[in-house]
Amino acid sequence: MPQKILLDCDPGHDDAIAMLLAHGNPEIDLVAVTTVMGNQTLEKVTRNALSVARVAGITGIPFAAGSARPLVREIETAPTIHGESGLDGPELPEPLLELDSRNAVELIIETIMTNEPGTITLVPTGALTNIALAARMEPRIVERVKEVVLMGGGTNFGNWSATAEFNIVIDPEAAHIVFNEAWPLTQIPIDVTHEALATPDVVERFTAIGTAPARFVVELLDFFGSTYREVQGFDAPPVHDPCAVAYVIDPSIFTVRRAPITVELVGTLTAGMTVADFRAPAPADCTTQVAIGIDTPRFWDLVVDAVERIGDPE
Amino acid sequence: MPQKILLDCDPGHDDAIAMLLAHGNPEIDLVAVTTVMGNQTLEKVTRNALSVARVAGITGIPFAAGSARPLVREIETAPTIHGESGLDGPELPEPLLELDSRNAVELIIETIMTNEPGTITLVPTGALTNIALAARMEPRIVERVKEVVLMGGGTNFGNWSATAEFNIVIDPEAAHIVFNEAWPLTQIPIDVTHEALATPDVVERFTAIGTAPARFVVELLDFFGSTYREVQGFDAPPVHDPCAVAYVIDPSIFTVRRAPITVELVGTLTAGMTVADFRAPAPADCTTQVAIGIDTPRFWDLVVDAVERIGDPE
Amino acid sequence: MPQKILLDCDPGHDDAIAMLLAHGNPEIDLVAVTTVMGNQTLEKVTRNALSVARVAGITGIPFAAGSARPLVREIETAPTIHGESGLDGPELPEPLLELDSRNAVELIIETIMTNEPGTITLVPTGALTNIALAARMEPRIVERVKEVVLMGGGTNFGNWSATAEFNIVIDPEAAHIVFNEAWPLTQIPIDVTHEALATPDVVERFTAIGTAPARFVVELLDFFGSTYREVQGFDAPPVHDPCAVAYVIDPSIFTVRRAPITVELVGTLTAGMTVADFRAPAPADCTTQVAIGIDTPRFWDLVVDAVERIGDPE
Amino acid sequence: MPQKILLDCDPGHDDAIAMLLAHGNPEIDLVAVTTVMGNQTLEKVTRNALSVARVAGITGIPFAAGSARPLVREIETAPTIHGESGLDGPELPEPLLELDSRNAVELIIETIMTNEPGTITLVPTGALTNIALAARMEPRIVERVKEVVLMGGGTNFGNWSATAEFNIVIDPEAAHIVFNEAWPLTQIPIDVTHEALATPDVVERFTAIGTAPARFVVELLDFFGSTYREVQGFDAPPVHDPCAVAYVIDPSIFTVRRAPITVELVGTLTAGMTVADFRAPAPADCTTQVAIGIDTPRFWDLVVDAVERIGDPE
Repeated sequence: MPQKILLDCDPGHDDAIAMLLAHGNPEIDLVAVTTVMGNQTLEKVTRNALSVARVAGITGIPFAAGSARPLVREIETAPTIHGESGLDGPELPEPLLELDSRNAVELIIETIMTNEPGTITLVPTGALTNIALAARMEPRIVERVKEVVLMGGGTNFGNWSATAEFNIVIDPEAAHIVFNEAWPLTQIPIDVTHEALATPDVVERFTAIGTAPARFVVELLDFFGSTYREVQGFDAPPVHDPCAVAYVIDPSIFTVRRAPITVELVGTLTAGMTVADFRAPAPADCTTQVAIGIDTPRFWDLVVDAVERIGDPE
Repeated sequence: MPQKILLDCDPGHDDAIAMLLAHGNPEIDLVAVTTVMGNQTLEKVTRNALSVARVAGITGIPFAAGSARPLVREIETAPTIHGESGLDGPELPEPLLELDSRNAVELIIETIMTNEPGTITLVPTGALTNIALAARMEPRIVERVKEVVLMGGGTNFGNWSATAEFNIVIDPEAAHIVFNEAWPLTQIPIDVTHEALATPDVVERFTAIGTAPARFVVELLDFFGSTYREVQGFDAPPVHDPCAVAYVIDPSIFTVRRAPITVELVGTLTAGMTVADFRAPAPADCTTQVAIGIDTPRFWDLVVDAVERIGDPE
Repeated sequence: MPQKILLDCDPGHDDAIAMLLAHGNPEIDLVAVTTVMGNQTLEKVTRNALSVARVAGITGIPFAAGSARPLVREIETAPTIHGESGLDGPELPEPLLELDSRNAVELIIETIMTNEPGTITLVPTGALTNIALAARMEPRIVERVKEVVLMGGGTNFGNWSATAEFNIVIDPEAAHIVFNEAWPLTQIPIDVTHEALATPDVVERFTAIGTAPARFVVELLDFFGSTYREVQGFDAPPVHDPCAVAYVIDPSIFTVRRAPITVELVGTLTAGMTVADFRAPAPADCTTQVAIGIDTPRFWDLVVDAVERIGDPE
Repeated sequence: MPQKILLDCDPGHDDAIAMLLAHGNPEIDLVAVTTVMGNQTLEKVTRNALSVARVAGITGIPFAAGSARPLVREIETAPTIHGESGLDGPELPEPLLELDSRNAVELIIETIMTNEPGTITLVPTGALTNIALAARMEPRIVERVKEVVLMGGGTNFGNWSATAEFNIVIDPEAAHIVFNEAWPLTQIPIDVTHEALATPDVVERFTAIGTAPARFVVELLDFFGSTYREVQGFDAPPVHDPCAVAYVIDPSIFTVRRAPITVELVGTLTAGMTVADFRAPAPADCTTQVAIGIDTPRFWDLVVDAVERIGDPE
């Protein structure tokens, strides 16, 4: 039976590919998509999510917009990586879906509370603002979700600072809330996603598919590759967010390690750093684990397969 | 026309008296009461609020429970000041009212969004967790409230640390959110409430009223006085929370000063301190002000009058 | 018998007046002057100290230069208040004295260790870098000094931030060291020195003296008044540093309060704030006290008298 | 020509072995040994240093005691690792050498200032308190030393917290000073020293030497191994400090990477963490580098060889 996931995202190039993976893969039942500011403003990423839904042929599920700003800190976006629209590169079609009238936080809570306990996996691929608010607004969701599988943070390095990754550092208080709740949580950090590079051979596989969604992916990767090359010196862009979806589909693609993980809030150099404590075996009540390795070929197989399955929706 | 206020509190001895003042004073239209952990656990302070409602004869308005814990930090309560029940001293009657099914945060949002813009004053007398969550869940409330008049913080000193006051320090992130939103905000800090002492002559005035609610107040002040004497060395207890209600009734009882005010989140000695910057005249867009003086006799006149007006509800 | 003091300063207009007070007052035996970066660079304030020595006719004691930068943080100076030279306004004469070959820290240590225990009072009127280094290089000075009487910090407000005063905030780690050593320490904060204003009648008294040093004071106050007026909106300039010397001469000019005092190092809004804890009576082993009041007329009488006594040295 | 080094240490089992390596290796000219509190109190580690000197036959060079406490924080020692004496295990002989009358900081400064520029390498293997004080007392040493090669910190993990290593975390302000000065600095972090394990075959090599110093090493490793096994779960003890000396002898034993490195001072979870920024190529003016790999067999060859060369001094 497919895994029900709610994808909380800020598309964003890699978020868009995460949507495609979640939609195209038969092991995943994408039940809702919620948005949060991050790669761009809430308005832009929400519009992007709806445009991607059209590209991918996602229909019949609610899309809801959530937090337009972090809990405590000022908003920070990433136009140097994702462009002014948050999804620069491909031409974005007019959305067909209408936005749900509920706040993303309400949708998250209702989705969890109206499905059977232990059936909904939350997959946040942006700042954790919505998830944190949901946990504070309705604490019962914590024991009711199946798992939280998030893309964010860095174990041994950062990208937005020497120690911190963007999704976490733009709302560290929200991340602190999410990492410290008692739900099972799997962190997919940049240590791993930096191995999920869209190298030319990967791009070639998408090109070979020949459908509109595949062309969309190629255009996304083209732009994403150019900014990663210019801004962070990468040869090929790391495609972070689909890794979290891939973990839900097949955890065996990743090597994970159980450890207490939390978030530094106050460091001058380390604010927003995720701190995993590997010094001793994880205590029995530890609910957090972090990915430390990825089987990159199998990861790309999953994504390519999902895009192929989507076909040409329109 | 009376001022509509929503009282967000954690009764708490002085919160209970704030409820009596809000209910008994004819200038105030108490439209809802919401609760938040603080002086005791959420369960206890919520039960206390309902018991006080019975003592005061408050009916026909919703009471809703909110946050059982701070946004980010671990919960901390004040049994040394308020006892194990949060309202030790008087015998607490069984509540007659039923709790509203909504979360306090939802009730706050709905109260503001369904009343005319500029008509609802929020009066928080506990931690600012509910108010902060409401502002993040529905940002439109910020421009729609009339004002936030809160009891909390200290300008020149603290009570829970050398620099920080209890309501703020137990959830500084929430306080940071509330002080930094663009709504008009008046802070009633302990610098002022420490002049609102329930001295023997004040207690005598309540005794002289002779009603059940007045006896309730006397019993509250008796217990509150004993803990403040033992724990903080006060001759008479400072009755903080009704000051915020009194400000709504008659701002002229207080001297206030406009200044940018925010909350320190990371200090070793100063976490949870409210910082008002008096170095220069407040900028034109400054929306915060702080009380720096109180006319104590007029304050007590208001409270005594309100308790008298309540009479003997049962 | 006069009090032996070592003045550790960063002249600086008010430091210069502190030198004149220490030199002219018969109750003070100024045994050495050491300098530290602060109001300007070490090179400039050291040159200024030597120029002031010539103006005041100070000879026969060592002047030594100390720390050119704070312990941990980057250097910050105050040209907006003290001008490019650190002592803008009067024409500064060529120094006659030669600088001692020792580092200020060495001179501080040797002065304390070679005088009788309990005879040397340290009077720092700048950043506490030299004093902190001396305490770490030779811990025995702590029990051997008579007292530390310093100008710095603010109890209820700051000047360089809303909470922090310049001398402390530019080297908070040094201040933390000095406030936490076991020597008797008296803090003269800006709460008090902001009442030591050089109002026109005070300036007039200096003018009336008619000597070169008095004219020098008038020129200092003229420039100092102009920057304080423009930058901080003062009608008349607060003459901070001589207050510390005045306390040594006659403590009865000040009201003081014993309390534990330490320094916040990590606050976003409060780094460099001196935190005095007045919540309870000072514990028996408390060695710190802070001035909370000043008899301003008697303070100025002391300074005017000292300048008169100096006469016309050249 | 041998490298002149000044060893600043807190013996400490691995410090003792670092002394033996420095003394026995012909490429090193050990010109002075200074001590700093850390593994144990200053008194204990200083006595230990002198005892080790006797064991190793070190004579004719000054030994000076330095800082008995960190710059700002309270002292913290490591008896769980190094025992009550700081060098538990072997019987420690009465020292033959007398302690130099100078403070370690003075000795460091004089050693650097009286030797040719660019000839003295500082090798700190404990807290950086002495080195930091020397840099502040005499800034000219910074451009005059050849290099600072220190053991301390962790790039990807810590030992005293999840992120921080003992030598740095016990005096992070001192470490901040040392890492941020402009001298060439090589950091040997625990990431590397945790590969310098004294496995049974290594111990066997020392046993086979058969001299008194070799037996001393074996006894050190025996105790050190037992505490590392019990407290940190190691199979064999990591022998940190000699790695820094080994780097001076033969840098080719280590893989190093140039990067800006500094120290977090204020993090809740990260205070005392060394932060190396590997995100981009090191800027041209970067003076810091960190070891990221070690050729463990060649490292042990050096140590075994040095102990063999020492022979039986008494």
